[in-house]
Amino acid sequence: MHRFAGIYTPLATPFADDGSLDVGALSRNVEKYLRSPLTGLVVLGSNGEAPQLDDEEAERVVSTVRACMPQGRPMLVGTGRESTRATIAATRRAASAGADAVLVRTPSFFKAQMTGDLLERHYRDVADAATVPVLLYNVTMFTGVTLPADSVARLAEHPNIVGMKESGSDIAHIADCIARTPADFIMLAGSATTYLHALCAGCDGGVLALASLFPDACVRLRALVAAGSIDEARQLQRQLTPIARSIGGTHGVAGLKAALDLAGFAGGSPRPPLRPASSTVVDVIRRQLEDLGALATAASPTTTTDRI
Amino acid sequence: MHRFAGIYTPLATPFADDGSLDVGALSRNVEKYLRSPLTGLVVLGSNGEAPQLDDEEAERVVSTVRACMPQGRPMLVGTGRESTRATIAATRRAASAGADAVLVRTPSFFKAQMTGDLLERHYRDVADAATVPVLLYNVTMFTGVTLPADSVARLAEHPNIVGMKESGSDIAHIADCIARTPADFIMLAGSATTYLHALCAGCDGGVLALASLFPDACVRLRALVAAGSIDEARQLQRQLTPIARSIGGTHGVAGLKAALDLAGFAGGSPRPPLRPASSTVVDVIRRQLEDLGALATAASPTTTTDRI
Amino acid sequence: MHRFAGIYTPLATPFADDGSLDVGALSRNVEKYLRSPLTGLVVLGSNGEAPQLDDEEAERVVSTVRACMPQGRPMLVGTGRESTRATIAATRRAASAGADAVLVRTPSFFKAQMTGDLLERHYRDVADAATVPVLLYNVTMFTGVTLPADSVARLAEHPNIVGMKESGSDIAHIADCIARTPADFIMLAGSATTYLHALCAGCDGGVLALASLFPDACVRLRALVAAGSIDEARQLQRQLTPIARSIGGTHGVAGLKAALDLAGFAGGSPRPPLRPASSTVVDVIRRQLEDLGALATAASPTTTTDRI
Amino acid sequence: MHRFAGIYTPLATPFADDGSLDVGALSRNVEKYLRSPLTGLVVLGSNGEAPQLDDEEAERVVSTVRACMPQGRPMLVGTGRESTRATIAATRRAASAGADAVLVRTPSFFKAQMTGDLLERHYRDVADAATVPVLLYNVTMFTGVTLPADSVARLAEHPNIVGMKESGSDIAHIADCIARTPADFIMLAGSATTYLHALCAGCDGGVLALASLFPDACVRLRALVAAGSIDEARQLQRQLTPIARSIGGTHGVAGLKAALDLAGFAGGSPRPPLRPASSTVVDVIRRQLEDLGALATAASPTTTTDRI
Repeated sequence: MHRFAGIYTPLATPFADDGSLDVGALSRNVEKYLRSPLTGLVVLGSNGEAPQLDDEEAERVVSTVRACMPQGRPMLVGTGRESTRATIAATRRAASAGADAVLVRTPSFFKAQMTGDLLERHYRDVADAATVPVLLYNVTMFTGVTLPADSVARLAEHPNIVGMKESGSDIAHIADCIARTPADFIMLAGSATTYLHALCAGCDGGVLALASLFPDACVRLRALVAAGSIDEARQLQRQLTPIARSIGGTHGVAGLKAALDLAGFAGGSPRPPLRPASSTVVDVIRRQLEDLGALATAASPTTTTDRI
Repeated sequence: MHRFAGIYTPLATPFADDGSLDVGALSRNVEKYLRSPLTGLVVLGSNGEAPQLDDEEAERVVSTVRACMPQGRPMLVGTGRESTRATIAATRRAASAGADAVLVRTPSFFKAQMTGDLLERHYRDVADAATVPVLLYNVTMFTGVTLPADSVARLAEHPNIVGMKESGSDIAHIADCIARTPADFIMLAGSATTYLHALCAGCDGGVLALASLFPDACVRLRALVAAGSIDEARQLQRQLTPIARSIGGTHGVAGLKAALDLAGFAGGSPRPPLRPASSTVVDVIRRQLEDLGALATAASPTTTTDRI
Repeated sequence: MHRFAGIYTPLATPFADDGSLDVGALSRNVEKYLRSPLTGLVVLGSNGEAPQLDDEEAERVVSTVRACMPQGRPMLVGTGRESTRATIAATRRAASAGADAVLVRTPSFFKAQMTGDLLERHYRDVADAATVPVLLYNVTMFTGVTLPADSVARLAEHPNIVGMKESGSDIAHIADCIARTPADFIMLAGSATTYLHALCAGCDGGVLALASLFPDACVRLRALVAAGSIDEARQLQRQLTPIARSIGGTHGVAGLKAALDLAGFAGGSPRPPLRPASSTVVDVIRRQLEDLGALATAASPTTTTDRI
Repeated sequence: MHRFAGIYTPLATPFADDGSLDVGALSRNVEKYLRSPLTGLVVLGSNGEAPQLDDEEAERVVSTVRACMPQGRPMLVGTGRESTRATIAATRRAASAGADAVLVRTPSFFKAQMTGDLLERHYRDVADAATVPVLLYNVTMFTGVTLPADSVARLAEHPNIVGMKESGSDIAHIADCIARTPADFIMLAGSATTYLHALCAGCDGGVLALASLFPDACVRLRALVAAGSIDEARQLQRQLTPIARSIGGTHGVAGLKAALDLAGFAGGSPRPPLRPASSTVVDVIRRQLEDLGALATAASPTTTTDRI
């Protein structure tokens, strides 16, 4: 199996009260995840509020995480930008700072022009210039752009494009991409509400914000599918779905950060214009975590070993 | 397991050259399906061009099929109309003609008004008046309306609403509906391109146009999932997906009827404004059937036992 | 100017308490409109709940209205059905019952198949068979289908297709259809919230539910645009927009019927699954009508002469 | 009338063959526009490929244009970023470099979270911090986000928010925003295909890529509407619509730059992943310009005085 196959969590980016980067809090989160069975970490993804960081902050995030991580644990870094040249520059900076691979979201501002052909050229130019492996990253809910399966099939032939993260929940599209790419092309699921289904479709793992809270459960769900224990896997997915929704589409980064705070990680406020979750939302998330036995308590501080 | 759980095919409606109903051809198709392992048949569904038939034709279709079918084999009849009163009237006619249950698509013309609350009242009124069990039927691709999971959960409490056909491919929605309804509420998948995934999500079977061509394969796929043989099930789904697409979203009823003709069933032309598949499309479908070993030949007339 | 150019209102269909057609109430409404400056009336449109009526009821509505109307006043009848043959049959019945022209909405159930080419064939077949002039009718909000401007341009060449009602608010599309059809091809606006703009784009009038309440204002707005008094026209449009929204997209037929009741016409309940407007909605509509001086009072029963 | 009312063109950003900024070409374009009747210029808009420029390039573009422009001619600068802090920083840089006002597009990456309330806070924070007036900028086709009319109405009360550019073609929305804001709140149209209609709705001018090619015609169309000459205005709009489409939604920046080259301005290639218009598209655009008499010729070099 490819060395990048597995379960990852995207790292949230903690900010200090003055709105600046809190690298100490970031390090503490990373240390906890390193004690979990997660395959590796994703830095500067959407959940890391990458579009809200400037280039200098982005570099500090990458170097902070790298400093914590042993070499055997893959660190994937998000480097997608609107222009090909800026994407290449960000990819080079990430590689210099120790990225094991880069995750390149589709450019998306000029949506109507983002045809398959144009996106293929973009990815080939980036992959040619990159000194580390490239993973495609399709996240239609944020970009309004979809990388067609035809293009994925052609890009998978590039020696430096090793896989893809598909954040959507369109299982037919995921299955199509898998059917049309070689067995060693890695497909990582990005939607925790359809994680079971993406695994049944043949995904090699996932990049899940849910794994920031429930790393063990996310790893276990994959093992259940591999063992053909579909009923048990479905039961576990069903338990995880409400909190997956809260920290995904429904409340986004604010939901994730509130859940991290409740579960004993460093979450904090997202950067404006994003706003912290309201107290009503925090209460809902608290109950969802309680249902799963995942609240941090003074007596029993949360480890990364979740109990479900 | 509920008596309506299982694999069904919707029946296409054959027309004679003058555009009138061809009940002889319909009977011959039914006879073939009765020799297959299919659980039962769906009459007057979308693939049966129900919106194109008048009430008198609809009744002839139902009575023709009933006449062919033994009592143990369920016949489900589509009776959804735009008004509650017309739906109730169609439901009563279907029950009189021998329907074992009715499949009631959401009304949809006044889309913006079709709220969950209003749809729930509609279904309750229909289920109260019906003398046979009612299955909800959500088919957003045709109606532009989605029955919310909240409403499905509440409607499942009605003693005469026994299940649902969900024709969409939104697996998260299907999983949600299953999670929120009792174990004996039947959920039938309607999208053949995501059939595997709907089964993994917990569906009790399906109503699949694909089963008009590959009844054995559709039954086998369900058995593979039940046995936890996900890799094999995924391989079978992958083989079936191209033809599933052709006779589903891509070419619709025209694609299904062309495939039926090629596979030795009675297909023919759809009713205008629908048009027969072009010769280019027919060639594509022929190759897809060839790849699956499913073409009718003079030497070896198609039986309903497909070879995959 | 073409004899069908002008301002029309679609007629709501009043029902008795037992849910049956109330032809007496319908006649009384028609009598009032005949005293207004409206060009003519549209029977069996969306606002007439045509999809909720059976064929026998539809014929009674047409004959009831015809009986009230003098020959010089055009009566347009909606006859669109899902199949070409049913549309032709309904068109013939309408013509026999005295329709001056028919308004044929696009078929729409099999949305993905409703290409321009297929819709053109449908309309040509209907127009060939019709003994009265045909108007195209595009109403995407209800059908999910859009008749392309290319198709409108080609259909306008048919001698028996004399115009179009476009119910959408996409002004660029309306302008495009007008630019590409001959000057004597009638374009009628169907969206009251963009009525001013549709007139500025070159529409020859409109079919407006708003004209059921404010026939004089609708006629005056058209005269203002014709006179180049854009500022005054904009002011009038602005006054009318809130109530136009209430009886259009926001509350639909239920909103229109509530407003009719308040303004002294026969409205009543829509047919289920549609539900009457809630008391909250009725209060909003009452205030909107009050703002425009259009409430019926015992002392001063509403005439059709509105005061704005 | 407010000093920012009027007709603007967004400036395209010319690049040299090596992909770097070509400030000389930019200056030459500006000089030509200064001889036209345009009110002012917009720098770093979508058509200026602002998302493709880095901060240093952005500052050079602003300072280059400022150096060419006399004080009386407004220069509006696009400064929208994803985070509030980055937007404020860009706004301050633009003000220092001589912007007369800034045009702030909605943040958009986290679409589902971009509620009216959150966007209002963002704009208030930016307007509080800005030393020059702020114009809201809604461009749904690129952002997938719509600033609600309710929010526009409330933001218009802020003393430093003086107007809005609405790039969409939803005339009902534009009319609604105008109806709910004070008379001195400037509304600028951004869609050239619905320019006439936006003016009829009450817009105070526009920011139109079309005005890069036809400044005189864009100014004249506004005068025609002001004079109530709707038929003539409609005729002019109709002539301009095909080229407006080519350089707008259909071919985007690549179409605009091809047209600029043909009309005697400096266009050139857009920055990758955007690609230059294909020769087929260039031929279409050439014919559209020929039809309008707007091609540059050796004998008669293009002035900014277009002939329609």
